[in-house]
Amino acid sequence: MSENKLRIIPLGGLGEVGKNMMVYEYDDEIIVVDAGLMFPENDMLGIDYIIPDFQYLVENKHRVRAIIFTHGHEDHIGAAPHLLEQVNAPIYATPLTRGLLEVKLARNGMSNHLQIHTVQAGETIQLGAFRVEFFHVCHSIPDGVGLGITTPAGLVIHTGDYKFDHTPVDNWPTDYAKLAEFSGRGVLALLADSTNSVRPGWTPSERVIDPAFDSVFRQASGRIIVASFASLISRMQQVANAAARYQRKMAFAGLSMVENARIARKLGYLDIPDDLVVPLEQALRMKPSEVVLMCTGTQGEPTSIMGRLSTGTNRQFDLIPGDTIILSSHPIPGNEESVNRTINRLFRRGANVIYEAVAPVHVSGHASQEEMKLMLHIIKPQYFIPIHGELRHLHQHAALAKEVGLTEERIAVVENGTVIEFQNGKMQVADRVPGGYVFVDGGSVGDVSASVMREREILARDGFVLVNLILDRQSCKLISEPEVITRGFVNPPEVEELLAETRQMVRKTVDCTSNGRLQSDLEQAVRSFLYSKTKRRPMVFITLSNA
Amino acid sequence: MSENKLRIIPLGGLGEVGKNMMVYEYDDEIIVVDAGLMFPENDMLGIDYIIPDFQYLVENKHRVRAIIFTHGHEDHIGAAPHLLEQVNAPIYATPLTRGLLEVKLARNGMSNHLQIHTVQAGETIQLGAFRVEFFHVCHSIPDGVGLGITTPAGLVIHTGDYKFDHTPVDNWPTDYAKLAEFSGRGVLALLADSTNSVRPGWTPSERVIDPAFDSVFRQASGRIIVASFASLISRMQQVANAAARYQRKMAFAGLSMVENARIARKLGYLDIPDDLVVPLEQALRMKPSEVVLMCTGTQGEPTSIMGRLSTGTNRQFDLIPGDTIILSSHPIPGNEESVNRTINRLFRRGANVIYEAVAPVHVSGHASQEEMKLMLHIIKPQYFIPIHGELRHLHQHAALAKEVGLTEERIAVVENGTVIEFQNGKMQVADRVPGGYVFVDGGSVGDVSASVMREREILARDGFVLVNLILDRQSCKLISEPEVITRGFVNPPEVEELLAETRQMVRKTVDCTSNGRLQSDLEQAVRSFLYSKTKRRPMVFITLSNA
Repeated sequence: MSENKLRIIPLGGLGEVGKNMMVYEYDDEIIVVDAGLMFPENDMLGIDYIIPDFQYLVENKHRVRAIIFTHGHEDHIGAAPHLLEQVNAPIYATPLTRGLLEVKLARNGMSNHLQIHTVQAGETIQLGAFRVEFFHVCHSIPDGVGLGITTPAGLVIHTGDYKFDHTPVDNWPTDYAKLAEFSGRGVLALLADSTNSVRPGWTPSERVIDPAFDSVFRQASGRIIVASFASLISRMQQVANAAARYQRKMAFAGLSMVENARIARKLGYLDIPDDLVVPLEQALRMKPSEVVLMCTGTQGEPTSIMGRLSTGTNRQFDLIPGDTIILSSHPIPGNEESVNRTINRLFRRGANVIYEAVAPVHVSGHASQEEMKLMLHIIKPQYFIPIHGELRHLHQHAALAKEVGLTEERIAVVENGTVIEFQNGKMQVADRVPGGYVFVDGGSVGDVSASVMREREILARDGFVLVNLILDRQSCKLISEPEVITRGFVNPPEVEELLAETRQMVRKTVDCTSNGRLQSDLEQAVRSFLYSKTKRRPMVFITLSNA
Repeated sequence: MSENKLRIIPLGGLGEVGKNMMVYEYDDEIIVVDAGLMFPENDMLGIDYIIPDFQYLVENKHRVRAIIFTHGHEDHIGAAPHLLEQVNAPIYATPLTRGLLEVKLARNGMSNHLQIHTVQAGETIQLGAFRVEFFHVCHSIPDGVGLGITTPAGLVIHTGDYKFDHTPVDNWPTDYAKLAEFSGRGVLALLADSTNSVRPGWTPSERVIDPAFDSVFRQASGRIIVASFASLISRMQQVANAAARYQRKMAFAGLSMVENARIARKLGYLDIPDDLVVPLEQALRMKPSEVVLMCTGTQGEPTSIMGRLSTGTNRQFDLIPGDTIILSSHPIPGNEESVNRTINRLFRRGANVIYEAVAPVHVSGHASQEEMKLMLHIIKPQYFIPIHGELRHLHQHAALAKEVGLTEERIAVVENGTVIEFQNGKMQVADRVPGGYVFVDGGSVGDVSASVMREREILARDGFVLVNLILDRQSCKLISEPEVITRGFVNPPEVEELLAETRQMVRKTVDCTSNGRLQSDLEQAVRSFLYSKTKRRPMVFITLSNA
């Protein structure tokens, strides 16, 4: 056990985009901030999503005093069901974050046995050695908070995801006064969102979307379909406002969109008059010029409503001539291609598509460079740890910190699993704990390893060839024609001749003398033969049966 | 045969980025403009590259009068060896384009039996019914041309890839006067580059890179490594100029970079004093502060120099402390993730990485919206066909054309394979010819079909499970324990128990009565069993041998 030491341990979000999770540890007490999931990158074949490796917390679960969620986005709450299954500590969240979390937990059959506490921005709670002050931050979801965490080692500010929007849709700006107050007390360390650190200037206010929506609503003569994230509550408000201005009714499509809108309206985070909203079935029967539909699928996921509309396979409704589609979103990194393909398909199916690149129908929820400098100047931390971003984002955020006067040794650019210790006002990079990826695939967690992924990669590149041989036990002669199975290799017509040659080759190679090594010798021979013929390297398997 | 009709047939580049190829046909004569390749998208598993489906040209090869190349980029010349293998028509290209093309053809063992003609910007050649006037355009490679194609049906302008750079590195701006002259004669149709149609404003001049390079060269105390495309000849010039200004020697690394630099210097498109260039081996022995290396690998390709440096596996040299890397490039669409990952790895290995997002070390070679409007206003075409872009780019280019006054019916937004006819000054969208993708994989062309790709996709997602059974011919009892092979499914330790259960299940299911259907029954049973246990759907195969 460390003595009078504050240990900060990132388990997610540092060196990647997503699955945010930060551990604060003072002596024998731990608080956890966020437990998010991350969407797979392109070469993570067949993976549904990725969660942090929180082995460290499982091993120290008796020491976990609290799990705090800063806001309700998937990259901050998505791994909660997995974490809570193994670490049942009290949960703290603001009302909307709690509402969204409860929806998620209920879907995983986990509504019971959890201790969830509602906190409000502005409140302070004592959690063992940690005094946590919640302060409001603007982000692309309402009710987001940052944390001022006072420990005997000093005060640490954890911004969470934030931007300095002066005209947010919910009229609730980031709490500058609280930040200044922290600064006056003296801040040991700042941990701040690095997402947009390569983006110059100041992220535009969410309000800039209103005129863009106005322009689309004014010109659209048919239906309007707005696609966004189900958690982008403020975007729902903006669509509702535009609908009201242009005498359209609004309908929500898709389970998560409907459910989140319901929670947000119930808790007062969405101000939509009842008569503005109609059920989807009713909307589909109305005149196209009188409705706006709001749905998910902005990432081009094939099974989402937008994905299905783009391929003409959506069940409840299809595109009709005159439809205008607004993609009010930004591609998750790595999804650019899939999003652009969906846009192309929607155009091909006759829709007019308005997206971020052609009109300001989306803005980022994260601070840009000038906001980051402002945060650094307001807080005036002794030490700075850029969080929430790929390594290149963390480095660029560090470069900005240097520009505003912090010296190199006061900045720690680290990745998940690196422990940072504070003692007697000094920062030190210490040991490492596991901080890798845990793959969630199908119904199971963690049983797909890097080596299975590597196999998938090889199969994906060149497929496989299997040859099944039945040999006479005595003579080692083939009893019947070798059976050959191939998938993902080359086309059936082209492959026939090749396989005939392979059979011939195998027949010649079979030899009793090499008995013990026959299988591997044959595999090697087939592999070389196929490579010489096709310049490809499919996986090759031989099964041998003696009869 | 069509009579007095001009037929324009895009075989590549419309509805996609890359593999540009345009066919112009008047009565029984055909000219082809460009024959490019395209890099595979993320879900085109195992594919090396894609070329146009030019079946139409093969079928009509006796009618092809010429193949014209507008410039030397891969997406315009990359499919040339494949096309020329089947359609041996005279080739026309400017000196640098010819030089780069010859390098490519030589590598494919195709130097002989080809009729290559050098043309210069400003020249006019008569090719049967076509009078082709070559005019200079600025692009990210020197010696690019657009075409004024006069036919009995009218004058068509084919811009090729262009931008209106007023201060290009080679001091040779796009030929405005020629464009204006065409306009004066009256232009039937304009076919113009749509790549950047969603980009507002005016593409910055290549010249803006100079100050960015200056700033990096001034600050770097160690080696500088500049990565770019091997075809970005003007970037080589800019690096050479910066090297000269900061008393560094320059070395080229990588076969294509060395070869292209050689050709460009020989032909006078690169002005680099001999004493500025040193061989790579010598550069590696010099003081780090005295050299700049130039290499390829900007797309994060694992086998490129940059890819290898990022993983510490480059043979000839490795990163050393103090290295500054400039990625002077833009990710090819769909490569963003791989490029960003490479940047992160280079940071992790201690390099300081300067890339497009943090400093203006690259600019686009394509016109932005205001340039596109200028082109439309100068040419004043009767009809407009946006080319070179995804469907969303073509639609946005069409929207710009409407903004500057063209009416909807005078614009044709089409995709590859759609024939556009002009007769008596009227445009009409006519029939279709094949315009799809031909996959090049390993040593072969076209023998990987969509169904093989689909198999690869399934294998990539969940792998496969194979069960090999040997049955007694009479009793249908299993003679030995079923052999199970699995790849890409789940981890070996986790899978053991599952496979034991699978064997058990198979043993129970084997039944002589279902004889004819035993194999498919078993496959179905194993499939259902594995899905119920894992919620995954691997490919399942059963091989049956009777003994």
